[in-house]
Amino acid sequence: MDPDAVAKAFVDHYYRTFDSNRAALVSLYQDGSMLTFEGGKIQGAQAIAAKLTSLPFEQCLHAVSTVDCQPSGPQGGMLVFVSGQLRLAGEEHALKFSQMFHLMPTPQGSFYVQNDIFRLNYA
Amino acid sequence: MDPDAVAKAFVDHYYRTFDSNRAALVSLYQDGSMLTFEGGKIQGAQAIAAKLTSLPFEQCLHAVSTVDCQPSGPQGGMLVFVSGQLRLAGEEHALKFSQMFHLMPTPQGSFYVQNDIFRLNYA
Repeated sequence: MDPDAVAKAFVDHYYRTFDSNRAALVSLYQDGSMLTFEGGKIQGAQAIAAKLTSLPFEQCLHAVSTVDCQPSGPQGGMLVFVSGQLRLAGEEHALKFSQMFHLMPTPQGSFYVQNDIFRLNYA
Repeated sequence: MDPDAVAKAFVDHYYRTFDSNRAALVSLYQDGSMLTFEGGKIQGAQAIAAKLTSLPFEQCLHAVSTVDCQPSGPQGGMLVFVSGQLRLAGEEHALKFSQMFHLMPTPQGSFYVQNDIFRLNYA
């Protein structure tokens, strides 16, 4: 499958899940997965899911502007770089964000998130 | 050495070189290195340096806002995620950008850029 199409499908799935059922994101991470969220470092699927579900808003909507991807090396990993906007329920203005994912293949032919770095792009 | 300190030192070196002598960036890439610049894909140190030196401005100044880093896997790689602002000579307004680097160790104990993805964050 075309890597750009895989990246696009992952990104669509990730933000759709984030915006509809954040707790379900746990299945995309593993014990060794790392998240850096606005500079804070979290490791492991359970801790990452706990962080994401505890963010201080009930609902949000991601609108993706760009998705870039590259193979990360001989182990079949893929780097996915996203820019977009994030709108919180009840807030008038959208926030710009950038996020990168390092996806690694699973034995089942899918991918999990090995690395995840998120930043808001303040004006 | 502390990975965050290595990432910070790399980022300082990269943008100082970019802003003073773009052609010298060639030494940070290898033949298998990949750059995605505003969606355009370029491979190999020479082609990447040619792209960066051909950008349509003489001078620019990067101001880094955030640097995040994570180990990318068992091969000793490091993911570095940067946000900041870019000011072109003669332009009043700075442009916001995000960039990620995947650094891989060299036998000499340094790092080269295996992956590089750059995006301007338009308002």
